Amino acid sequence: MDNTEKTVWKGSALTGPVPPALVVCGTAERPNVLTVAWTGIVNSHPPMTYVSVRPERYSYALIDGTGEFTVNLPTSSMARETDICGTLTGAKTDKIKKCGFTLSPGTRTGVPVIAECPLSLECRVSQKLDLGSHTMFIAEILAVQVASRLIDSKGKLNLQQAGLLAFSHGEYFALGRKCGNIGFSTK
Amino acid sequence: MDNTEKTVWKGSALTGPVPPALVVCGTAERPNVLTVAWTGIVNSHPPMTYVSVRPERYSYALIDGTGEFTVNLPTSSMARETDICGTLTGAKTDKIKKCGFTLSPGTRTGVPVIAECPLSLECRVSQKLDLGSHTMFIAEILAVQVASRLIDSKGKLNLQQAGLLAFSHGEYFALGRKCGNIGFSTK
Repeated sequence: MDNTEKTVWKGSALTGPVPPALVVCGTAERPNVLTVAWTGIVNSHPPMTYVSVRPERYSYALIDGTGEFTVNLPTSSMARETDICGTLTGAKTDKIKKCGFTLSPGTRTGVPVIAECPLSLECRVSQKLDLGSHTMFIAEILAVQVASRLIDSKGKLNLQQAGLLAFSHGEYFALGRKCGNIGFSTK
Repeated sequence: MDNTEKTVWKGSALTGPVPPALVVCGTAERPNVLTVAWTGIVNSHPPMTYVSVRPERYSYALIDGTGEFTVNLPTSSMARETDICGTLTGAKTDKIKKCGFTLSPGTRTGVPVIAECPLSLECRVSQKLDLGSHTMFIAEILAVQVASRLIDSKGKLNLQQAGLLAFSHGEYFALGRKCGNIGFSTK
């Protein structure tokens, strides 16, 4: 078989790898966390992200209610907790307690961040798009909290040391072999 | 130092890992390719994706002009080509020729796909949002083309066999150790 032979399927929500983000929503007193794979950066200046959430999910009204959320990136050692937060509903389970997460306050939002995650984005919704199955919450990233241990003496963030978790087509992966730095091909 | 101690920075476009997608745009006669890290899924039904592109980039007018593009996911063995397509401009270089890519026709779009990529999404723009530095093109995924060698005898797509490339904070990575299937935590 020709190695580049392709099979054509109808349209499908397929891409990867993506960050399986732990999204905290609600309030400091009554927070909830859900895992969202449909997230990413949509703008650099000002920095903006999005999360796409089904209106049926318990967290939808929490995000919609406060207009705030935090995106917390898990490490590969947090795969189990990440899966729990994407599988169980906050309507029936205190997932933060079940996962043993430590919450710490947001600095620009009323929503807390997950201390165990090496990178947390504090976000405020600026726009909401109903696209069909999901509603896309587009949000400005007001502040980021990074694990101090990842910042070197020059103030540079060494995010590769965090060991971030990846999600691709229903499977979780650790990041593996480094293939290069941006711009390496033209140096 | 407390392992969970965090440092607070101002908002920044930080997330990862993301797919460093090879986006083909233009026409079958005059195609161009650029690498876009700001992409992801925004809706499942109908399947929708997005790419955020700076208006200064050569490809901006090509996407805006036809309202179509294809998203092609590279493997870890294509890191160099992926970097080239994110670093050089199509205004001065024929990147498709330079990278040695084979183009094959889109089935639902006039824009071709990259045969060497194991997964290609054929997309039509449905909405355009100017967010600041970037314009977000939200698009319906009309068809997907998957490498036939990744489809098993039951018709299941084994995307992990593709060895997709990941991008995180300026670095390219192969995917590494598998940490579980979706739902594994509650089984």
